[in-house]
Amino acid sequence: MDPDITFRYEPVPEDCAAVRAIVESTGFFNPAEIEIAVELVEDCLEFGEASEYYFVFAERDGAVAGYTCYGPIDGTEGSFDLYWIAVDHGRRSQGLGRVLMRETEGIVRAAGGRRIYAETSGREQYEPTRCFYERLGFSRETQLRDFYAPGDDKVFYVKAL
Amino acid sequence: MDPDITFRYEPVPEDCAAVRAIVESTGFFNPAEIEIAVELVEDCLEFGEASEYYFVFAERDGAVAGYTCYGPIDGTEGSFDLYWIAVDHGRRSQGLGRVLMRETEGIVRAAGGRRIYAETSGREQYEPTRCFYERLGFSRETQLRDFYAPGDDKVFYVKAL
Repeated sequence: MDPDITFRYEPVPEDCAAVRAIVESTGFFNPAEIEIAVELVEDCLEFGEASEYYFVFAERDGAVAGYTCYGPIDGTEGSFDLYWIAVDHGRRSQGLGRVLMRETEGIVRAAGGRRIYAETSGREQYEPTRCFYERLGFSRETQLRDFYAPGDDKVFYVKAL
Repeated sequence: MDPDITFRYEPVPEDCAAVRAIVESTGFFNPAEIEIAVELVEDCLEFGEASEYYFVFAERDGAVAGYTCYGPIDGTEGSFDLYWIAVDHGRRSQGLGRVLMRETEGIVRAAGGRRIYAETSGREQYEPTRCFYERLGFSRETQLRDFYAPGDDKVFYVKAL
């Protein structure tokens, strides 16, 4: 692994701006989705573990280059949701997504996690997202037809640990 | 429809006890699940529409005989979750579940709803729940294997409106 990457797990107030910048830089998310990404950081800052949002921040040169946000799914034994995984556009294609995922999986496994779920849209424009999950070792398990809107399925990916 | 049944849509503080009594009476839910049922009423009482929990209470002889709790699913166009549908044990087999579901569907449709989802476990002991949804016109759409625990799938039911 790149020795210049360090991990951090506790969000700090500056992460709100960092997460916003990273998520915006991807060019992939709409304004409402970007707000949600920032709100999850704010919730964790305000409520701590009660928020049930956990983070892995990957830093390089003192700046956040990518992050994951994940958490246990209530009412399950060992199922976790991967809410966000995003890498700064300028740091793409350096394997940072894989490194972040491996780190996140290690923590989830140590916490008794068995499965990590990621959900996305079945629309054409989300093909890169679906490929990204598959490269990270997720399998497409199933889908709910027309879930998001007519013609817009919800696709479930899972990674068994 | 039974002319003695009236519907009410705004929870009142007394509904916390009524919902607890109904959910307990079914003999079907564990203490943690019963607390969640009551918490959704409390959330709606405290936060109103911001809670995104909506209710239909069916009353007979001045008492709540059954209820549904439902709400729109964030990030979707017209998908709703049916969080709870329960009928007092002493009022079973009188078609109250069907009456509650029809009333709930009418409201959801008027609010632009297209689909109502219900989720349950694939375990043997939940066979009555799955039959109940099927009798109410839901179709089993798919499942996530081992979602709740090893050997305990999450099953998705949907009713297209």
